[in-house]
Parts: sequence; C-alpha cells; structure tokens
Amino acid sequence: MEYPNDQAPGAPIRAGVPEHGRIPKYYAVKTQVAALIEELGEGELLPTERDLAVRFEVSRETLRQALRELLLEGRLRRMGRGTVVAGPKLEQPLSLASYTEGVRRQGRRPGRTLITLDQFPCPPGLAAELELERGVPVWHLERVLLADDERMGLESTYVEVARVPKLATDFEPDSSFYGYLHERLGIGFGDADERLETVLATPREALLIGTPPALPMLLIHRISRDQRGRPLERVRSLYRGDRFSFTTRLAPSPT
Amino acid sequence: MEYPNDQAPGAPIRAGVPEHGRIPKYYAVKTQVAALIEELGEGELLPTERDLAVRFEVSRETLRQALRELLLEGRLRRMGRGTVVAGPKLEQPLSLASYTEGVRRQGRRPGRTLITLDQFPCPPGLAAELELERGVPVWHLERVLLADDERMGLESTYVEVARVPKLATDFEPDSSFYGYLHERLGIGFGDADERLETVLATPREALLIGTPPALPMLLIHRISRDQRGRPLERVRSLYRGDRFSFTTRLAPSPT
Repeated sequence: MEYPNDQAPGAPIRAGVPEHGRIPKYYAVKTQVAALIEELGEGELLPTERDLAVRFEVSRETLRQALRELLLEGRLRRMGRGTVVAGPKLEQPLSLASYTEGVRRQGRRPGRTLITLDQFPCPPGLAAELELERGVPVWHLERVLLADDERMGLESTYVEVARVPKLATDFEPDSSFYGYLHERLGIGFGDADERLETVLATPREALLIGTPPALPMLLIHRISRDQRGRPLERVRSLYRGDRFSFTTRLAPSPT
Repeated sequence: MEYPNDQAPGAPIRAGVPEHGRIPKYYAVKTQVAALIEELGEGELLPTERDLAVRFEVSRETLRQALRELLLEGRLRRMGRGTVVAGPKLEQPLSLASYTEGVRRQGRRPGRTLITLDQFPCPPGLAAELELERGVPVWHLERVLLADDERMGLESTYVEVARVPKLATDFEPDSSFYGYLHERLGIGFGDADERLETVLATPREALLIGTPPALPMLLIHRISRDQRGRPLERVRSLYRGDRFSFTTRLAPSPT
C-alpha cells in the first residue's frame, strides 16, 4: 500500500520521497516537525531549536533548513523571539470585489497604511496599458495591506489624474479605493484582466511588508476597465505567499 | 523625479531600494545583471560567474546570490553548463480548458509523461471533497506536464474508479484526460472550484520536474463537477513558478 490511508487531500504524494529513496535529511526532519505542528495546533509555541535538534537527532543547521521551509510556506510564524504554529492561509476570492471586502468576509479586520501618494508623467509602458497619452499626469497610490494589523501585502495603483483629480485631498488613504470611486465619483467597474505569478520580495518590499527578504510572494497584475470598456487603473498587488491563497470558480468552457 | 520615466509596468517601485537607502550588495548586483539580461535578449548566453564578478566588482558569493534569485524568478535558465536568458513565462488561462489547450494556444507543443496510475481506497479527506464513500476505489493518475519537451509541472488527478473503470486500458496517458472524458465517456464539465497558492517543491517533486529543490511553485487545487453538479475529480497541479503565470478575466461584481 503506497498511499497512506490518512493522506490529506492536496498533500504531496508519498510525503515527498523521491523514487530513488534517498530522502534529504533536512526533509525528513521537516516532515517530523510538520507532524509536531499538526499535534500542537494553531498559535502554540514550538520548542526551541536546541530542543528540536536534540529530539530529532540532527545538527542545528539541518534543523534550521527544515524550519526555514516551514516558515516560507506559512506553517510556522516568528512571534517575538519564539516560533508559533501559524493559522491557515487567508483565502481571497479572485474577483472585482475589493481587498477590504475579501478580508472582512473571513472575519478579519482589513486595513491599509499609506506609503506613497504622488504624481508622475505617464511612462510609455503604462501609457500603452491604460490607453493614455505618454506624459500625462498619473497618480501612484501605494499602500501596505493589513488584516487585523498584520501586514499582508503591498498594493500599487496607477490611475490617470484627470479621472480622480482630488485623490490627494478627498480620499481617506486607509479606506477602499473602489468604494471611493463608486460612492464619490460614480465610477463603476466593467471587467478586469488579471495575471498571477510568484516572485521574490525585493528588499524594499520585504521591509515594508515585514517579511524575510526573498520570501515567495503572489503578485497579481490587474488592468480594470470602467463600464464603457475604457481602461481605468493598473494595479500591482503583492501578497505574502505564506499568508495568502486565491480562490476562483470556473464556469464551464463553451465547447 | 522619483519614478524613472522608463519604469516598466508591473516592475517594483524604485528598483527595490528601501527608504533607509541601504541596498543589499547582492541586490545592487542583481539589478545590474537584470539590465544585462535586457540587453542580451532571450536565449543568449550569460558571461561566466568569474567574468561577471570581475565586471561588477563583487565576490563570487555575492554574485551567486544575485544569480540564484534571477534563476528562481525565471529570468535566467541553466542550459548545459552555461546560463542563458530565459523567455517570458507561459501564460495559462485559469479555465476549464485543459492544459493541452492552454499550451497549444501559445504555440508550444504540449505533452505529458505518466508517472503513476494506480488505485487506492478513498481516504476520508478525499471522500469528503468528492462526496464519495470512504474506502471506495479511486484512481490516482500522476503525470509530468511538458511544453516542447521541457518539464513544466506535475499533475495528480483523483477520480472514482466506478466513473472511469477502463482508465488503465482505454486511455492514452500522454493525451488529455478531459478529452478522454468528453469524447469516450460523454462526460462534460459543469463548473469547478480552484484555489491557488505558492509552495516549495518537495525533493520528489523537484526530481520529477527537474527543478532545484525548494523552487517556488504555483499549486492549483481543483475540484470539478459534472453537468449535474456532482463532484467528478480532485486535481493537484503543480507548476514551475519560474515558467508559469496564470491569467483570468474578472466579470463585474454584482453591486
């Protein structure tokens, strides 16, 4: 029986052991720590590195490699000087609903911290994407995304100044930009194109989001259009890969 | 002028320099190598590590850290003993169209290599997801995904044996499973729920896909239903994070 009867859905097959049967030592420890994480449950404190190294009879270096992966994957979190068992990843629907709405739906308190709000002349690439003349003034609104005061991501929105001229004075930077567009300016969304990929955080991003540098992040590029089909904004949203997953419902393909 | 006029859309702001202004040395080199990559263009050979270290006046260790990130991000690829400039990531639509179809649409030749095809008694988690009785026989079909013979990912499909009893004899394992369901068995899809996240490859997965261990991967969990709304399959698709991105069009939210 090659499949353990209690294999969790979505778990890798055979606990990740290659066919040649040589399991890297750090990986063997990782599966042992993962089992311990299951036992302990969310929020519980992990034993110290020293204790774990003794318990699993490996070097501190090997143990650290195992912990590093579990941290990158969001199964553990640093808290103060200790390491605790992390909760499940937040599930954000891929939709034109705002971040605010998605986070609230999961019973968390959304928030945003303003990092940058300024204008610059539209560069060629952005001009092509938003169907603007090169050089027209464009806002850049950059905010850290929060859930229950925990920093979750970093969002940059680019929008033509002529469409939201009073953004700097009229808009509460910790509120929903989509709410502002809709309620104050009567602008509604048509549709949007998104592209998702995984990237590594740059040093600046890691600092702003408070993650280890080079943490795998989920990056979503969005171009959304208004109800007349005219491009409205270009958004670059970077989410902690260890804290976020995205869900979508696929409709039947027209065959 | 804080925004370089030629900033590419979707690029990180200010080339990733933290506000405190201290740029990690490896990151400074990374941006220099990235500029060189732009100059060279797809498929061109990168100078040797030794030459690059001399050119940018850094240690081999610092240079390697920069190259490692560019490799993980899919901007460089190892080829034989050299390193070449990688092409853009494949863009796969998030849809119920098959992998085969998505890859073909980009002018690449799709392929699949069979790794595993066997039966096992349905474990509790899978039974809940597929609305099956625990213990009924379930197929596990595991295949490496190829594009132009390059290994791109690893896909595990779980489906009740009673629904596709002749899978082991009737089905060409390098062809589309969805095509088989549709053409041979007349089974069409209703809808599907997907969840995307980023994970690290396990040693077994890295070996099968031929990636460095701990490469960030995009993992898609899918549960698809037939036209009567009955769950049909559970799929775990793992794609190389350095070679794939996913696109979707969002419909207006009903507000």
